[in-house]
Amino acid sequence: MSIDWSDITHVTKVDPAEDLPTNLDILDHTDLVIVGGSDGVTEANSLDAIERIRRALPDLPVFQEPYSSGHVSSETIDAVDYLSIPAVYNGDRDNFVAKHVEFFTEIAAKPQETLGAGLPVVGEVIASKGRDAVAQLSEKILPEGYIVQNLDSKAATESGVDEAYTTDQVAGAALATESFYDFPIFYVEYSGTYGGPEDVEAAANYLDDTVLFYGGGIETHEQTEEILDAGADAVVVGDCFHDDPEQFLETLP
Amino acid sequence: MSIDWSDITHVTKVDPAEDLPTNLDILDHTDLVIVGGSDGVTEANSLDAIERIRRALPDLPVFQEPYSSGHVSSETIDAVDYLSIPAVYNGDRDNFVAKHVEFFTEIAAKPQETLGAGLPVVGEVIASKGRDAVAQLSEKILPEGYIVQNLDSKAATESGVDEAYTTDQVAGAALATESFYDFPIFYVEYSGTYGGPEDVEAAANYLDDTVLFYGGGIETHEQTEEILDAGADAVVVGDCFHDDPEQFLETLP
Repeated sequence: MSIDWSDITHVTKVDPAEDLPTNLDILDHTDLVIVGGSDGVTEANSLDAIERIRRALPDLPVFQEPYSSGHVSSETIDAVDYLSIPAVYNGDRDNFVAKHVEFFTEIAAKPQETLGAGLPVVGEVIASKGRDAVAQLSEKILPEGYIVQNLDSKAATESGVDEAYTTDQVAGAALATESFYDFPIFYVEYSGTYGGPEDVEAAANYLDDTVLFYGGGIETHEQTEEILDAGADAVVVGDCFHDDPEQFLETLP
Repeated sequence: MSIDWSDITHVTKVDPAEDLPTNLDILDHTDLVIVGGSDGVTEANSLDAIERIRRALPDLPVFQEPYSSGHVSSETIDAVDYLSIPAVYNGDRDNFVAKHVEFFTEIAAKPQETLGAGLPVVGEVIASKGRDAVAQLSEKILPEGYIVQNLDSKAATESGVDEAYTTDQVAGAALATESFYDFPIFYVEYSGTYGGPEDVEAAANYLDDTVLFYGGGIETHEQTEEILDAGADAVVVGDCFHDDPEQFLETLP
């Protein structure tokens, strides 16, 4: 499935370790779902959340954002449109490059274990079929250039972020995404607090081909509009989807 | 200029702070020149080396590999086919992501200073023309995924590399380049010592769209052939170009 980004202005982040609302119909109003989290997340609850959302809304694009290769299997890969994988610019080395090399080292070394038991397991055939599975996986990977701007958030702690970027650095990271890393998404993450439009404006100025997401503290229609007016392609809403469906509906553009 | 990588099997790295051979005709046998270095390198000696090579061999592709934005100007950018910028997987954070964000932050914040005095300098026009200059620059940027495997080299010290990758990690870094970072080049650097074919074989197994370079200690035709047979697209030869033109000619495929 190829994504038409111009249709996507509202994204919902779903934590598979938390309860989903009984009625998933509220997702009818969002344009994309990203399933991912860290605490308590497993391959099994990720797959369960993905499949429930798929059943309720078959036409809605669904991504998995895995925190480790243990959250991924051939079943989750088959079930989603893309695997979105964050690269945190202002995080520690582990959360930019080391985690990725580790992830792909594991997949390259043991494709049949990482990508599912369905692969042949004898001699040369492993290598050749494993290689195909890896190629298939590669086509589904969507890297995201992230900055985490709320130092008090769990996301900052987990990504080893001890410094928020200045507005100039946000522009630089956006330009590095557009010109150097060529990641399809640049993601300004304020995780749990509303950051306002400044960083989004700074980033939007240097992004043409890159899609710009803003996430963090969005609770009202006005905040959504402010962020979209500042140049973001989409807002990402998370907590209130699980906690407060009424408020979730207020965040729609 | 777009590069036909299938024509490139021998690359010469030229240090602009060192003397060039009086007769540059020996470069007629190489397929690509990369101009770059750290000690004593300036924008002026980089531009001088680039222009001398251009005059001697107008059809030879020439890249600049800058170590900082201070080595780059609108003149060097205009004079080369591409700016190749290393991202060292097994280096410290500064040599993967931080250096790039810094580089682009500087360019985004002061395009007219970084990219030359020829840009308009009044009001809105700065921003708009500076933006064009940045877009032009972006088209010329060629990221290289690097691993530095000789811990005793200056390259390792400068890149903060304190651990060589295992063969599995080399494969993982190659797969990360192909699937995630999407850099056009993966570069196995043994800087000053011959590393043999193992890492090249491990990387080549996971590279389809990515070009594979090997550099380090190449002094004979047999070494060049061993590396190319192992799956590298090209060998990179540096020191003997400056020191020993006869030996340089022996490294040709």
